[in-house]
Amino acid sequence: MRTASPTPTREDKPTTERIMRSPAYLLALAVALLALRLPAPAVAGRPLKPAPAEAAATARWLAAQNTWGVLSTISSDLKGAPFGNVVSYSDGVPGESHGIPYFYLTTLDPTARDALVDDRTSLTLSEFPLGTCGKKDPENPSCAKLTLTGKLKVVDHQSPEADLAKTALFSKHPEMEGWPKNHNFEIFKLDIEHIFLIDWFGGPKPISPSEYLEYGRNQGSLMSF
Amino acid sequence: MRTASPTPTREDKPTTERIMRSPAYLLALAVALLALRLPAPAVAGRPLKPAPAEAAATARWLAAQNTWGVLSTISSDLKGAPFGNVVSYSDGVPGESHGIPYFYLTTLDPTARDALVDDRTSLTLSEFPLGTCGKKDPENPSCAKLTLTGKLKVVDHQSPEADLAKTALFSKHPEMEGWPKNHNFEIFKLDIEHIFLIDWFGGPKPISPSEYLEYGRNQGSLMSF
Repeated sequence: MRTASPTPTREDKPTTERIMRSPAYLLALAVALLALRLPAPAVAGRPLKPAPAEAAATARWLAAQNTWGVLSTISSDLKGAPFGNVVSYSDGVPGESHGIPYFYLTTLDPTARDALVDDRTSLTLSEFPLGTCGKKDPENPSCAKLTLTGKLKVVDHQSPEADLAKTALFSKHPEMEGWPKNHNFEIFKLDIEHIFLIDWFGGPKPISPSEYLEYGRNQGSLMSF
Repeated sequence: MRTASPTPTREDKPTTERIMRSPAYLLALAVALLALRLPAPAVAGRPLKPAPAEAAATARWLAAQNTWGVLSTISSDLKGAPFGNVVSYSDGVPGESHGIPYFYLTTLDPTARDALVDDRTSLTLSEFPLGTCGKKDPENPSCAKLTLTGKLKVVDHQSPEADLAKTALFSKHPEMEGWPKNHNFEIFKLDIEHIFLIDWFGGPKPISPSEYLEYGRNQGSLMSF
């Protein structure tokens, strides 16, 4: 970048250059450039969305960037109806996602109770709340949508996986650590069996669970979300 | 980039004033001010959230203020697993909600195909994307969640209800009107049979479908969302 001219000859330089060197202009320009990336404030620090053709990368990006979604179960209370519930989740600490969604649920809530009776579950995520869809409609195929379907399992709270899951959850959801102990929150995970991703026109992209889970391994930190 | 200074007299004005009068600075400042307003657009003009004790009002507010949610069906493709999908919806034109969610779906998508086989469906909404939960976690009970469960039905496209539904949908989702005709989008509605609302600590609030649907009738425009 330009550096301030140390000499008094500055007054002789063209006006445009003087303006462009002023700290006020540079600050305003920086904010303006940020604003032009709109909705930049919603995506500040967010890794760029992968290209639509990179299906596994896009699915992992959606899972890593979102912090909540809808978990759908077969409802015990409602005679087998599909029941969606808003939940928080985490698939890793920020910048180190692994793709497996972990949850912190209590059987005071129907979702955990349902899963203990019938563990078939899906987790649904949208790109829309990330602020990167711009003016596109949430149902527009280029505003990405991900549904991970599989089995919702309790994680043994004495296992090393439970420690990893807690670190992943509490780093993205700090208030969870203080939730009432007598509500008996347990860690659950989704064992993914099927992936439904829409990130462009032309129908869902086929991705296998192993393609999804192995994405980014051995690709270094630049590829992790 | 550099231009010659057009008038020698400008050189005599104080540097700050010259900078502040430059079109580039003013443009940058305007954009910067816009950026500083963020994330105000997320809640600007939004009717205030009702008090947690007003359960029917809160449920109607959530349905009116959101424009998308997750529709869960019993999946035909996935052997009866619960399948959540991101959809846009509308329960009325802005400021005149009726509580019944209408959708614009195509059988190119599994959700509409599922509903034609087994119409048991739920629509799940969160307060979180509205920007009114502040720093609360999306799973915190005071960040409201609504699940409307019932039957997903096709609306006869020659009925007066279809005209109302189209007006409701297209007013909140203008791009829908231009979606490809050969995708055969149809209007669907959710016939609500059960309501699950969490808007505070202490478990779900009991609301009947009729309490929900009748909320705001005869209460004048101030009470409508």
